Amino acid sequence: MHGHDALVFLLSLATLLGVARLLGELARAFGLPLVVGELSTGLLLGATGLQRLLPDVHAWLFPPGAPAEMLSGYTTVAVVLLLVVAGLEVDLEIVGRRGRSALLVAALGVVVPLFGGLALGHAVPDSVVGAPEQRGLFAVFLGVALSISALPVIAKTLLDLGLFKSDVGLLVMTVAMLDDLVGWIAFSVLLGPLRGGSVEIGVVARTVLLAAGFAALCLLPGRRLLDRLLGALEDHGELAPGRVLSLVAVLAMLGAAATQAIGVHAVLGGFIVGVAFGASPRLRERTRQTIHQFVTNVFAPVFFASVALRVDFLASFDPALCLVVFLVATAAKLVGCAGGARLVGMPWRESLAVGFGLNARGAMEIILALLAREAKLVNDGVFVALVTMAVGTSLLAGPSMKRLLYGGRGASALTGVGADDAAGLVRDGAFVPSLTANTSARAIEELGRALRPVIGDLVEPALISVLERELVAATGLGDDVAIPHAPVEGLTKPVVALGLSPGGIDFDAPDGRPARIVFLLLLPPRAYDDEVRVLAALSRSVFDEAAREALLGAASLEEAVRCLDEHGRRIAGATPAARAPNLGDL
Amino acid sequence: MHGHDALVFLLSLATLLGVARLLGELARAFGLPLVVGELSTGLLLGATGLQRLLPDVHAWLFPPGAPAEMLSGYTTVAVVLLLVVAGLEVDLEIVGRRGRSALLVAALGVVVPLFGGLALGHAVPDSVVGAPEQRGLFAVFLGVALSISALPVIAKTLLDLGLFKSDVGLLVMTVAMLDDLVGWIAFSVLLGPLRGGSVEIGVVARTVLLAAGFAALCLLPGRRLLDRLLGALEDHGELAPGRVLSLVAVLAMLGAAATQAIGVHAVLGGFIVGVAFGASPRLRERTRQTIHQFVTNVFAPVFFASVALRVDFLASFDPALCLVVFLVATAAKLVGCAGGARLVGMPWRESLAVGFGLNARGAMEIILALLAREAKLVNDGVFVALVTMAVGTSLLAGPSMKRLLYGGRGASALTGVGADDAAGLVRDGAFVPSLTANTSARAIEELGRALRPVIGDLVEPALISVLERELVAATGLGDDVAIPHAPVEGLTKPVVALGLSPGGIDFDAPDGRPARIVFLLLLPPRAYDDEVRVLAALSRSVFDEAAREALLGAASLEEAVRCLDEHGRRIAGATPAARAPNLGDL
Repeated sequence: MHGHDALVFLLSLATLLGVARLLGELARAFGLPLVVGELSTGLLLGATGLQRLLPDVHAWLFPPGAPAEMLSGYTTVAVVLLLVVAGLEVDLEIVGRRGRSALLVAALGVVVPLFGGLALGHAVPDSVVGAPEQRGLFAVFLGVALSISALPVIAKTLLDLGLFKSDVGLLVMTVAMLDDLVGWIAFSVLLGPLRGGSVEIGVVARTVLLAAGFAALCLLPGRRLLDRLLGALEDHGELAPGRVLSLVAVLAMLGAAATQAIGVHAVLGGFIVGVAFGASPRLRERTRQTIHQFVTNVFAPVFFASVALRVDFLASFDPALCLVVFLVATAAKLVGCAGGARLVGMPWRESLAVGFGLNARGAMEIILALLAREAKLVNDGVFVALVTMAVGTSLLAGPSMKRLLYGGRGASALTGVGADDAAGLVRDGAFVPSLTANTSARAIEELGRALRPVIGDLVEPALISVLERELVAATGLGDDVAIPHAPVEGLTKPVVALGLSPGGIDFDAPDGRPARIVFLLLLPPRAYDDEVRVLAALSRSVFDEAAREALLGAASLEEAVRCLDEHGRRIAGATPAARAPNLGDL
Repeated sequence: MHGHDALVFLLSLATLLGVARLLGELARAFGLPLVVGELSTGLLLGATGLQRLLPDVHAWLFPPGAPAEMLSGYTTVAVVLLLVVAGLEVDLEIVGRRGRSALLVAALGVVVPLFGGLALGHAVPDSVVGAPEQRGLFAVFLGVALSISALPVIAKTLLDLGLFKSDVGLLVMTVAMLDDLVGWIAFSVLLGPLRGGSVEIGVVARTVLLAAGFAALCLLPGRRLLDRLLGALEDHGELAPGRVLSLVAVLAMLGAAATQAIGVHAVLGGFIVGVAFGASPRLRERTRQTIHQFVTNVFAPVFFASVALRVDFLASFDPALCLVVFLVATAAKLVGCAGGARLVGMPWRESLAVGFGLNARGAMEIILALLAREAKLVNDGVFVALVTMAVGTSLLAGPSMKRLLYGGRGASALTGVGADDAAGLVRDGAFVPSLTANTSARAIEELGRALRPVIGDLVEPALISVLERELVAATGLGDDVAIPHAPVEGLTKPVVALGLSPGGIDFDAPDGRPARIVFLLLLPPRAYDDEVRVLAALSRSVFDEAAREALLGAASLEEAVRCLDEHGRRIAGATPAARAPNLGDL
């Protein structure tokens, strides 16, 4: 540590992190994504702002040389760990089990934007393309850039709408994961030949093979090995989280170095390692949270703040280009994903909602754009247009999904269930004031049996469906609530059993807390419409702390219904707000 | 990110972290402190090992230039955050409440080693001193270096012995905190004039004033401001931990930059900011854990691995110097601290145990030595001697405390309580099979009232003492166990009430888990001897999972006593092993 260099480095790091977090919180207060505030930090402190206004201060705080290298070391680690966190959220099990419908939507969600980007890349004037002889590569890049989705933004939006664990939500998440996986591999491969300077078919083929081999190695034998290793480590009680943390960091950096050495970008290694870890059921929620918390609050803001630090956004802002990129990106995703969802049997409104959800590009697009700019694949104008598109599509996702799924309709045409009718559903269903079960499976069984007077012999097939669904993805919502649910053949309207468990039952909720309020929800088959509404209604009925506490005191069906009814009336018309923001802050 | 630089940086980082964690675990498996393994990494991969054996590989993996700067950025952040973690463990409240006895031991524990170091600094031959004209400064530095203690090693040792929350433990921890605070300020001030090149009295005075002013500002108004700020942040539920994490990182780096600017070392800023945060009761245990986990598992190992990277330990190893430094350091601490403890009324054995505990120098000494070497205050020979001394004193602490406190004696001479007599204590005390209380205060009250047949009117004064003691430091030990305790005037032998709470009661344990087994322990006044033995006996009686589960099933006094008795016989003679290693891994 050399005195002055260390001083400048620490001060610039503290400034970037502090301002990025403040502006991030400010953005969130205005209902914008966190990353918008973090990106603005670079505008404010970098070439666009501070350098114009106070060039001396800027030159002192961000000098070239050692402090810049130190900062670049920090952001290198930051971006690798950021991709690890993104990878951790990919759940290969779910991808595997959702089968063909997700694959179809995902394929269309990649292919249509890919062609959209290719077309756009060939249509733009020469001045937009960095080097005219690279137009082919530029067009392929645009295609890839338009085809990825922002998993964290999508997860956050679904959580906000109370749909994270619904079938619509699961489909959207699965598709986003697949798109990301394909997109990142494609992009990394794209950078390979570019780095070498030549675009020979042999080099490209070699890079593609090596990258695919690396991914396959990590995700097949590597994943199984990792799972076993985690099993061995987790035996050591309190030591385990620390060891796992070190293992994640070491493997992420080794993976990053490996992909960099292959000739694709370091971030791919981080991402794949994240996916491999995320796939292991033995990675504890708490360890996941520790990584997530530290990376999103101490590393990521500095990275995003540094994105716009050296680019003059004012000078490079081309409104026409920004608009065209935004429109093509949105149109292509909507056609691909909403079309795909319609093909697998979703109603139009829900399909469009899927499209708008997957249209969010968020932080991933920004990382991609930054790397492309560093590789001189795009100029500052295209870079700014891609960043603007990433922010714009992310902003659009939440409101449009909310409007499509909740807006402008009364009770469901199919079954007459109103949006806030949790009380009615429980009245016509069953109530268990004190569950004796201590596992989620037992609780589901107990609630299912309580429904025998209502659904008779459908109890057994219903239980099987719900338990299978629970295996695909646990239904703990956090805040003490779980809603295990499934479609049941033969059912004509939604049926609910409500159970209370003062001691709590583990439903693998994102906040790690056991569920004390459990709704068992049985749905008519293929009633996507109902699913969305009823899940939202149930989730909303216990939305605030006071409502949950009141409900937990209920000793009879009448008291429970009265609680739900009173609360339902009080919040009628309100839309659900953010519940578990720690899962997807980007 | 430049391709090759980033590759080398990521690879060297991954190698340092991976090897350091592996060797750390290996060290722990052999009963050595983690830091011994981490330090050895530098020996293995640096100038002492790899550079001699495979100079080409070494030159490729650790080249000068950009990758070295990037690594140095990472280790700069690492050492600042490491000092934050050290600072977090300082509890000013406890320091305030332990009053004069701690102050006396602390003062002697600083002053005697200070003079020891001064004397040593003046006695060594010229060849040992870096620059002969700096002998005065060198001697002062040695004095400071000998006077600090390693809080984390001490905390870990006390946890291992089951004494972390005993009065002996509290005294040792308090003294270590005070010593650290004084030592770091003194050392930082020492570096100030040295950096300027001159040792003028005016410069020194100015630096001392500024550093003391900075510390006072942070610890008095700053601490109160921080407490209020944390209160405001904590209102935001799940968002809070993330915000607090960012706040800690930003303030730590700003503090580090501020102290660096004043002319004292950056680490002091990190330490003081850590102390200020640690003082706030609003900093949640979980946030503390997240910081601790990430820093000790992802940052710290790289720092410690890099310590010995550029020093050739073989060439600079001077056995005579190492031995002399070790002996003077140990003798001075023992005289100061054991003498102080004896003066405040502890028996000889316990006093010596306090001395050996505080003799551990651990990681803090190593950081100090590294910084002194970088500032050219000491040469490589003295650096190696200080590192050796740090490791040696840390290795000595645990075994010697164990032998002094537990070894070679039967039942206590004073009261006839044997070391494993938990069963007997409970038999003569009271048993509450199912506590109705849901707070620690209520549980203490309930258990206290259950002791009325045994201690009569002493119940009320006893309750007051225990509750006051609980306020000073909560007594949750982790692993479902809490042992609230206090001396009671008028009592002639230890009395225990055992209560079980299936739901658990929060006793602020280091692992965050509620206590399901609560021992209320009342002691005769000033019975340090008894305190150590009985606390260890109780803690040991529920040491393993099986014993706790069996005990939790007990419905009557007889069953509880039988459980404790059977387990006591099974583990008779065994010494307690590590319980909560996440509190002090260094």
